[in-house]
Amino acid sequence: MSRTRVHNLFISLDGYAAGEYVTLDAPIGDARGLFAGFDGRVIHGIDRADADVTLDRALTTLWGQGVGAEIMGRRKFGPQTGEWPDGGWRGWWGDEPPFETPVFVMTHHPHPTLDFANGTSFRFVDGTAQEVLALAQEAAQGGDVRIGGGPTTVRQFLEADLIDFMHLAVVPITLGRGVSLWDGLAGVEERFTVESVASASGVTHQLWNRIARG
Amino acid sequence: MSRTRVHNLFISLDGYAAGEYVTLDAPIGDARGLFAGFDGRVIHGIDRADADVTLDRALTTLWGQGVGAEIMGRRKFGPQTGEWPDGGWRGWWGDEPPFETPVFVMTHHPHPTLDFANGTSFRFVDGTAQEVLALAQEAAQGGDVRIGGGPTTVRQFLEADLIDFMHLAVVPITLGRGVSLWDGLAGVEERFTVESVASASGVTHQLWNRIARG
Repeated sequence: MSRTRVHNLFISLDGYAAGEYVTLDAPIGDARGLFAGFDGRVIHGIDRADADVTLDRALTTLWGQGVGAEIMGRRKFGPQTGEWPDGGWRGWWGDEPPFETPVFVMTHHPHPTLDFANGTSFRFVDGTAQEVLALAQEAAQGGDVRIGGGPTTVRQFLEADLIDFMHLAVVPITLGRGVSLWDGLAGVEERFTVESVASASGVTHQLWNRIARG
Repeated sequence: MSRTRVHNLFISLDGYAAGEYVTLDAPIGDARGLFAGFDGRVIHGIDRADADVTLDRALTTLWGQGVGAEIMGRRKFGPQTGEWPDGGWRGWWGDEPPFETPVFVMTHHPHPTLDFANGTSFRFVDGTAQEVLALAQEAAQGGDVRIGGGPTTVRQFLEADLIDFMHLAVVPITLGRGVSLWDGLAGVEERFTVESVASASGVTHQLWNRIARG
């Protein structure tokens, strides 16, 4: 059964998962502190970096295991708003986006598909969370679907009760402003079991598993 | 740089990593309790089992990441002693051993190589830890080498200071007898940094990283 998963979602102690101001120079807005301890080199495996194998890294590597497609919000793909401008924007990630699967970018504005040699393709789709998830599950060919963020997109899928697993990394900083993951989600934890694990880095990891529907 | 790694090494509170009496019916001797919480289905990834993603499972999946060869003691391969008997013994694992790489079985007694369709091959070698590690590193083709146990074999590589990373799972049981991982290794921790993480299951995971040489 294909699961819908969230990985490496960093949030501050006050619940903010991204900064307010996303620009070309600052893709995560003013929330850089959230990612200070994040080493993206190990999303595909602990062997991808010649460095100590810590709890933080071990959990980071879950990101790609068994994932056949990703869904992301348009603001994760780029800082533009409204109609897509000409200009050849192909995302933040250069010629080798780390996804290596189909990626569905949720947007109301049409855009041609972008294909990359490493298996990544960006497909621009309009629809509800359920509709886009159905597309992604078909593309995943039996694999799981990752909801890649940003926080607004994760919140949309949580509201629709479509998330089976979520890995949160609670970072011991306060941001005071930003995009809150939890807006409108009071009581969401009642649908999950939550395992919390403290890391030597100060980060607390939370593993949210959806209680079996029944 | 190829690392030498140990994964999913379960030990009791009194330091025993395997039972005393290994037979065909009881491949881990009388220490079954050590593995009561171990789900081998997820050694290749959390997606390999339709079950909650817990800390225990997340750490279990590190087992195969970037590993290009394994070294195991002869007692992990089979219960026989002395000269290898005829009889077609091909290990405990049936037609699809989970290793999917070359596996070097340390033994003083010659035995022909055994090949499996899924990429696993058992190669029987005599030599010191250093010598066998050199063979395994060559076979791993740039990947890491896993020391697969049993505990006597892990201890041998620890004594020779050849281990770069070790994941121990300390299980809250006492066995009173068995093969101790720690015999003759007093002070071994001085060569490592050790991160300890308690799991909701009662297991304490330890991530041992060798302090950089030099």
